[in-house]
Amino acid sequence: MDAYTETLERLITALGKLPGIGRRTAERLAFYLLTADKGEVVELAGAIREVQTKIGRCEACGSLAEGPRCSICDNPRRDRTRICVVEQPRDVIHIESSGGYNGLYHVLGGLLAPMEGEGPEKLDLDRLLSRLAGGEVKEVILALSATAEGDGTVLYVADRLKGLAPSTGSPSTSSGQAGQAVRITRIARGLPTGSSLDYANQGMLADALRGRHEIGT
Amino acid sequence: MDAYTETLERLITALGKLPGIGRRTAERLAFYLLTADKGEVVELAGAIREVQTKIGRCEACGSLAEGPRCSICDNPRRDRTRICVVEQPRDVIHIESSGGYNGLYHVLGGLLAPMEGEGPEKLDLDRLLSRLAGGEVKEVILALSATAEGDGTVLYVADRLKGLAPSTGSPSTSSGQAGQAVRITRIARGLPTGSSLDYANQGMLADALRGRHEIGT
Repeated sequence: MDAYTETLERLITALGKLPGIGRRTAERLAFYLLTADKGEVVELAGAIREVQTKIGRCEACGSLAEGPRCSICDNPRRDRTRICVVEQPRDVIHIESSGGYNGLYHVLGGLLAPMEGEGPEKLDLDRLLSRLAGGEVKEVILALSATAEGDGTVLYVADRLKGLAPSTGSPSTSSGQAGQAVRITRIARGLPTGSSLDYANQGMLADALRGRHEIGT
Repeated sequence: MDAYTETLERLITALGKLPGIGRRTAERLAFYLLTADKGEVVELAGAIREVQTKIGRCEACGSLAEGPRCSICDNPRRDRTRICVVEQPRDVIHIESSGGYNGLYHVLGGLLAPMEGEGPEKLDLDRLLSRLAGGEVKEVILALSATAEGDGTVLYVADRLKGLAPSTGSPSTSSGQAGQAVRITRIARGLPTGSSLDYANQGMLADALRGRHEIGT
């Protein structure tokens, strides 16, 4: 269009490539940036430019890190006997923001998706196995999505880990918490917290019933 | 929070300052940028950085320009006998995208707002008057918002321009289109195109009735 200058059109196009930002929103943001405080604009441009160069992956857990190890793996107050296995770095932040977990993490880097050709070689399992070999870890919590792919990955990972953990390798499903045993658990599923039973679908209700437990435990 | 690296937090904060972008959206965008194509990220950062340094104002009309004059003022195919007066550069783009205008523009840079202490000294009228002095312009179209401030500014600008234009300076309101006269017009207001009469408010209906015209003109 005649009225846009080349630089403005370039900015609108670049902003419009962001997820959830359409042409209209990109135009609004571009006009805001055109007249915004200069310091704010330079700061935003700098932060965008640096996000990929400064942030890498933690060599221990695979989560986001600025340096060799992430702030969670480096924190001496975290419980080193538990590892929570998640799909991606973003999941670490979600679980951290819940405030309900004080252990370490392990980022798998994906889920098994046989239909899309995503096999076990995509999962960062070797590093997890070597972390468990140290003997310090007592529990591995599998916190993957409640989807078909998440479920398949949980079964696969649990299977690989059981080969390593002496006592949970036995046929009994609820193994005792023996000294050196590594417990392999998965996060609960059921009715979403805060939601009415009216809105629960069949899958949620079936899972919620299956996962029922004694009141008071 | 423990899980965010400093650079990521900095990016989320910077994105969250954009209008209409909350913390959640900023997080989503930051994670997208973290793993996006490197070229795309560098391009976005560069476009943001350059938007203020490369884009200035056209020395003729006050619209956006990369260089001394904007692409509209520089375009020899535009009708130089008409000037459309708007509040801000963004309005130029809106009118251009309608495709219904082929003349030049003049950006006032604001509207009169006596309640907020915005007086006539904020309006770029002197430059408009000197453009009219050339004698080439036959019509000035006032395309300001249909608000109290827009209306007040239309009256003030029309008053200043009438002192300059010989024939419209006469007491008759509908002046003849004599050779050297500068017509001073304002854009129509009424029912929004595409809207049902049911949804029109009193002000729209009153304006629509006042602005009625013969069918076929």
